[in-house]
Amino acid sequence: MIIFYWRRLQHMKNDKITISMDTVICTMYDDSLKVVVRKRSKAPYAGRYELPGIYLKTDESIKEGSKRCVRETTGIKNVYMEQMHTFGEVKRDTRERTVSIVYVAMLPASQLIDEYGDFILGDAELIDIQELAGSKKMAFDHGKILSKTLEWFAFKAQTSEIAFNLVDEEFTLPDLQKAYELLLGKKLFKSNFRNKIKNLVEETDYMTVGAAHRPSRLYTKV
Amino acid sequence: MIIFYWRRLQHMKNDKITISMDTVICTMYDDSLKVVVRKRSKAPYAGRYELPGIYLKTDESIKEGSKRCVRETTGIKNVYMEQMHTFGEVKRDTRERTVSIVYVAMLPASQLIDEYGDFILGDAELIDIQELAGSKKMAFDHGKILSKTLEWFAFKAQTSEIAFNLVDEEFTLPDLQKAYELLLGKKLFKSNFRNKIKNLVEETDYMTVGAAHRPSRLYTKV
Repeated sequence: MIIFYWRRLQHMKNDKITISMDTVICTMYDDSLKVVVRKRSKAPYAGRYELPGIYLKTDESIKEGSKRCVRETTGIKNVYMEQMHTFGEVKRDTRERTVSIVYVAMLPASQLIDEYGDFILGDAELIDIQELAGSKKMAFDHGKILSKTLEWFAFKAQTSEIAFNLVDEEFTLPDLQKAYELLLGKKLFKSNFRNKIKNLVEETDYMTVGAAHRPSRLYTKV
Repeated sequence: MIIFYWRRLQHMKNDKITISMDTVICTMYDDSLKVVVRKRSKAPYAGRYELPGIYLKTDESIKEGSKRCVRETTGIKNVYMEQMHTFGEVKRDTRERTVSIVYVAMLPASQLIDEYGDFILGDAELIDIQELAGSKKMAFDHGKILSKTLEWFAFKAQTSEIAFNLVDEEFTLPDLQKAYELLLGKKLFKSNFRNKIKNLVEETDYMTVGAAHRPSRLYTKV
């Protein structure tokens, strides 16, 4: 009985709260910005999509937690990740109070799509983020999380080089421009774009090969 | 006994973690960017400075928590606040695992300094953020939090209008330029600066009055 009393005292000191790590895993495919989601089979929100998520453990840093989230839910390791925002409305999860620390992961589609154009993540799906942002198709506040992600992308793409995470190590300039446009949420003039990024890229000796288009020069990041 | 067993089962489901809300309250005073800190009287880190902080309650949103933090530690209400970053290293607090969600608050010095130039917050102190960022003068990882805040300021000042939160409703252009420079961490050319902000400000009919300087035009935000 003393032990239980001591535990209760410990709990009275300050509240302890469940922390989830939800991750927005994004790629560029089919000329749109896609996000990895899974359809919920159970209540609450059965039939709606959710972001991959795990619960943070007491002995795990949030950086480790975010990596575990991506690894356990998709099998992907070594992906670019950055903390985006923490969501903490009281009623955001109807089951119990949960604060969600959201990381964004970005990777080229080649890491998610096999050589036949099939998505490699089993029961997860790759859906246009524009279709899900702010939408009731998402469970919990995950639609709101995606809206915030779009704002964050527009902001970050202006002031950082995150767009490079959406293309392969060797890329064409039209592909890189598309990545910038999807993150910024607007079209760019080719000449302005090329002028802006000219010090960030360098030409390789290679060209794309493909029947549908004429060959394009491949570039790498400086 | 059944109640305790049920409680333990609940706890096994997922870990629950203490969440603190630590706030970086910043102002511009004496031509530098200052932060509100308090000297710790108790171990751990007795004698070092800490940021104002509270523990998040289960029935309180993180936005409410951040506001309560500022209100309870400084008495200040209605201040500009924005979520900056969440810090979650396992050992960041040696007493128990604590994840810290950090908000930045910004206000003009006139709200913190009385008409005699005295700081109104009792035992708290107003110290140059440059002196404390990354420094061992700060308890826990609060030195690291301040370093991250400086990065964040530089990033935000480029792409948003947060600098206006450091000046009064009516301000001189040299004051506004100083606010931008402190946040960006670099000097700006007067002509470039004025050109950049010309659509954000408008002239008032008033001038500053003071013996030490010649009168300057006062402006407001558009």
